[in-house]
Amino acid sequence: MKERTKRLSLAPLLISNTKTNYRPMKPTTLKTPLVLVNLKCYTESIGNGAHRIARAAREVSDESGITIALAPLYMDIHPIIHHYDIPVFAQHVDPVEPGAHTGRMPLPAIKSAGAIGSLVNHSEYRLSVADIEKNVTALRQAQMLSCVCSNNVATTKALAALGPDYVAIEPPELIGGKISVSEANPEIITGSVDAVRNINSSVKVLTGAGIHSGTCVKTAVELGTEGVLLASSVVKAEDPAAILRDLVSLL
Amino acid sequence: MKERTKRLSLAPLLISNTKTNYRPMKPTTLKTPLVLVNLKCYTESIGNGAHRIARAAREVSDESGITIALAPLYMDIHPIIHHYDIPVFAQHVDPVEPGAHTGRMPLPAIKSAGAIGSLVNHSEYRLSVADIEKNVTALRQAQMLSCVCSNNVATTKALAALGPDYVAIEPPELIGGKISVSEANPEIITGSVDAVRNINSSVKVLTGAGIHSGTCVKTAVELGTEGVLLASSVVKAEDPAAILRDLVSLL
Amino acid sequence: MKERTKRLSLAPLLISNTKTNYRPMKPTTLKTPLVLVNLKCYTESIGNGAHRIARAAREVSDESGITIALAPLYMDIHPIIHHYDIPVFAQHVDPVEPGAHTGRMPLPAIKSAGAIGSLVNHSEYRLSVADIEKNVTALRQAQMLSCVCSNNVATTKALAALGPDYVAIEPPELIGGKISVSEANPEIITGSVDAVRNINSSVKVLTGAGIHSGTCVKTAVELGTEGVLLASSVVKAEDPAAILRDLVSLL
Amino acid sequence: MKERTKRLSLAPLLISNTKTNYRPMKPTTLKTPLVLVNLKCYTESIGNGAHRIARAAREVSDESGITIALAPLYMDIHPIIHHYDIPVFAQHVDPVEPGAHTGRMPLPAIKSAGAIGSLVNHSEYRLSVADIEKNVTALRQAQMLSCVCSNNVATTKALAALGPDYVAIEPPELIGGKISVSEANPEIITGSVDAVRNINSSVKVLTGAGIHSGTCVKTAVELGTEGVLLASSVVKAEDPAAILRDLVSLL
Repeated sequence: MKERTKRLSLAPLLISNTKTNYRPMKPTTLKTPLVLVNLKCYTESIGNGAHRIARAAREVSDESGITIALAPLYMDIHPIIHHYDIPVFAQHVDPVEPGAHTGRMPLPAIKSAGAIGSLVNHSEYRLSVADIEKNVTALRQAQMLSCVCSNNVATTKALAALGPDYVAIEPPELIGGKISVSEANPEIITGSVDAVRNINSSVKVLTGAGIHSGTCVKTAVELGTEGVLLASSVVKAEDPAAILRDLVSLL
Repeated sequence: MKERTKRLSLAPLLISNTKTNYRPMKPTTLKTPLVLVNLKCYTESIGNGAHRIARAAREVSDESGITIALAPLYMDIHPIIHHYDIPVFAQHVDPVEPGAHTGRMPLPAIKSAGAIGSLVNHSEYRLSVADIEKNVTALRQAQMLSCVCSNNVATTKALAALGPDYVAIEPPELIGGKISVSEANPEIITGSVDAVRNINSSVKVLTGAGIHSGTCVKTAVELGTEGVLLASSVVKAEDPAAILRDLVSLL
Repeated sequence: MKERTKRLSLAPLLISNTKTNYRPMKPTTLKTPLVLVNLKCYTESIGNGAHRIARAAREVSDESGITIALAPLYMDIHPIIHHYDIPVFAQHVDPVEPGAHTGRMPLPAIKSAGAIGSLVNHSEYRLSVADIEKNVTALRQAQMLSCVCSNNVATTKALAALGPDYVAIEPPELIGGKISVSEANPEIITGSVDAVRNINSSVKVLTGAGIHSGTCVKTAVELGTEGVLLASSVVKAEDPAAILRDLVSLL
Repeated sequence: MKERTKRLSLAPLLISNTKTNYRPMKPTTLKTPLVLVNLKCYTESIGNGAHRIARAAREVSDESGITIALAPLYMDIHPIIHHYDIPVFAQHVDPVEPGAHTGRMPLPAIKSAGAIGSLVNHSEYRLSVADIEKNVTALRQAQMLSCVCSNNVATTKALAALGPDYVAIEPPELIGGKISVSEANPEIITGSVDAVRNINSSVKVLTGAGIHSGTCVKTAVELGTEGVLLASSVVKAEDPAAILRDLVSLL
C-alpha cells in the first residue's frame, strides 16, 4: 500500500459511489481500514487549521493508500472536499426536516456541502435513541454513511441493532487521553465486535478514544475492528502529517 | 374500596421479592399480564386525584386478580404504596449518583419512597442511550424493574439489547389518542415482539399508546405482548374504576 | 431573638399567608433574614436524612427565631411541612401546565404538596429566560415565592428584571466549597445588591455558594443581602443542628 | 447580481469596523434601520438557495441604501460574505471555548468565517441566562454584534440588562405567521422599547415575528424600534428581491 506518489482522487477511496442510482444501490462505502479524524472545534482545527490537517491527511493518504477521512466544522466540509478531495463526515446532524429550526443542521445541508456521512451521538453530543434511529435511517436513505458513537459493550449492541454503517466505541473516560482503549480495555473492543456480529454483522466497528500511535491502530485492527476514530492526537499535533504517518505505519 | 372483603397485600402480585438477598437473586417480578397506568401530571392525577385512581386500581385488582401498577408523581409514590399496597413505578429516574444535583431524582430516592421500578425514556422524557443503559443497569442492581419506552420496531430492538425488564412500544403519533396501536398498526407490535425475541428473549414487551378498552388489551396480549402501558384513558376518566374494569374484562 | 423555647408554628415565620384571598393580596412572605437550605439529593438528604435535617431546622428555628426554610426532594415536601411545620421550597418546578408531561413537575403538584415556593434556575438545573419568566409569573399568580439563582452581577441584574421574590447569587466555582462568596468575592454581592436596587427594589437578594459559618452569614447580611442559600455544609454535617446553630449565631 | 452598476463594499453599511484596534474601539455597528433576515434551514435556504437570497439582499440593499443583513447556515457564512459583501450573522453560537466539543460552534469559528455577529437565544434555540450572558460578553469582547431574541416585555427587559447590541422581540405565537407583531400586539413593542430605555438605553430593539410587508416595517420603526428580524416571508418567497423591495419601500 506504500510508495504511491500520485494524487488520488476521492473515487478510489470509495468502493462504490452511487449518486446516480438512488434507491436500489448500496450507499457510498469507504475502504477498510479507515482512519477517521474528528476535528472537533479546537483552536487548531478552526479556519486555516482545518486546511493544515486536510493537507496532511491528503498527503499521508496518497503515500499509504489508507483511507483517511475527516469530520471538520460545518463551514469546512465544502472547502475540504473541494480542495483536498478527502472523504468528509459532519460531526453531527440534527434529526429534523428542513424548516424553521434556527441554528440547527438538517441532513440536506451537510449533503449539499459535500459530506458523505455524519458522526451521530458522539459522547460530546448525545442524542435520544429515537433521534439516533431517525438520523441513521435518514443517512441511509440519502446514501450517506452513519458512524454512531457508543460508550460500552451494552450500548454498542443497542446501537448496532439500528443498523448504522459504523459503530465507534469511545469509553468516555479515555477520550482525549494518552491511553488507548485497545491498551486499557481490549475486552470492550472484542466484546463489542462479538456483540455486533450477533446483532447485525453488516455493521462495522471502529475503535475510538486514546488512539495515538501506529501500535494502537494495529491492535485495533487485530482485535477485529475496521479502523479507528480519533481526534486530539492528530488535531493538536505540531506536525499532523508525521502523526498520521505513524498511525498508518503498521497497517 | 369500601366493601372489599379481603385486602390483598402487595406480595401476591409480586412473584418474588428478594430484598433480603441482594446479589444473586432475581429482582422483583410482576405477574403477567400487567396493566401499567402512567399518571403523568394531569390535573386529575395531582394530589387527591392520585388517591382516587389508586383506590380504583386497588379495587379492580382485587376483583380481577390482574396486576395493575401505577406510575404517579414522585410525591405520591410513598402514599400510594402505603395506603393502597399497589406496585408503583416512578415516571422517570435521573441517571446520576446521589449528590449535588438540585431538582434531580436519583435511584435511591425513588427506591427509598417504595417504588419497585421506573419508566425510562418515555417519549415525553427522552434520554440518551448511555443514560438509558445507566438506568437499566442501576435498576437491575437495585433489584428494581425497568420499563423502557420505544417508538418503533428499530428502537424496540435497540432498547431490548440493553436487557431491561420491559420495553413498552408507544408510537408517538398515537399517544393520548383514541386509536390504539394494536388497531392502528399491529405490525409494529408483532414486529417488535419478534425482534425482541431474537435479541433478548427475557425482555417482556408492553403495548402502549391509545389503549382504551378491554378489546385493545385483549388484542395486545394476543399479539404476544405481556400487558399494556396506558395513561389518559384511565387518568382522565370520570370513573377510573369502570375504565379499569373494562380494560381487564377480556383477560 | 435567642432563648425561645416554645415550638413555633409555621404561622409566625410567615408575615402574611393569604390563601383565602386569591388575587389582590400580597403572596406569602418570609421573615428576614432567611436561611434557605437546599437539600439537593445527597445520600444524607434522601429518605430519613431529610427528616434528620428538618428536625434540626425546627429546633434551631425555635431556639433562635430565625426563619430556616428547606428545599427537599419532591417526596419530602409534604412530610416536612406536615411533621416539622417548616417553610418548604421545591428545588425546581417545570414551566408546564398540568397535562401529558411524564416525569415533569408542574406548579400545582408542588403547591398541593404544601410547598410555599420554589427554587428556579439553580446552576444545577438551568432554564431558558422564557421558562424562568413563566415560572416566576406562575409562582406569583399562585401566591408562592420564587427564588431565582444567578451566577454573576450581570445575570443577577437580568433576573431581577423578572421581578422574582428572591435572587440568590451563587458563583458556580464556589458551590459546594469551603470558601464563601462573601469572603472570595464580596464585590459580586455588593454589585448585585446595587444592581437589583436599580432594577427592581422589591427583589430580595440572598448570598449563596460556600456559606459554612456564622461569620459568612453575618457578612452576607452586612453586605446588604437578606439571607443565605446553602446546601452541603448543613446536609453533609454530622450534626446539622450544630451547624445551623453556628450559622444563625451572629444574627 | 449581474448588471449592478456599482457594487457596494461592506464598508458603507458599517459605521465603524475596528478589526485593527482590538480593545478600546467600539465594536462594529450597523446603520439603522436594519433588516435582518434569518435564513433558518428551510429547503429554500440550503445550498444554492442561500445564494439566491443573498443576491436579492445585495441588489435591494444597493438600490435602497438600507442595511440588509443575513443569518445563514454556518457553511454559508463565508460564501455570502465573500461573494455578496453582505453583513452576516450566525444563527447561533455555542457558549464554549474552542476545544473538545464535537458538533458545537464556538465564537472563533464563526468569526473566522467572517460573521460580524450572532443571533443568541432564538425561540428555536433557547439558552440559559448564564449562557446568554457568556455569549453577549464574548461577542462584545470579539467586537462582534449580539442580537438576543426575547418573547415578551418581561424577558426583553431581562435580556436588555445583559447589554447586548440588539434585542429582537418575537412572540412565539406569531413566528412564521402572516400577522406581524406590530399589528397583533403593538403594546408588546412599545412596552419593550420603554422597558429597554429604562434598563439600558444603548440596547437597540428589533421587531420580529410575522413581518411581511413594507407597512409592517414602517410600523415597527414608528413604534420606536430600529429595524426588523424576519425569516419565512423572504426565504420562502418565489421572488425574494420583490419581497425585500417591498419591505424597505416605506422607510
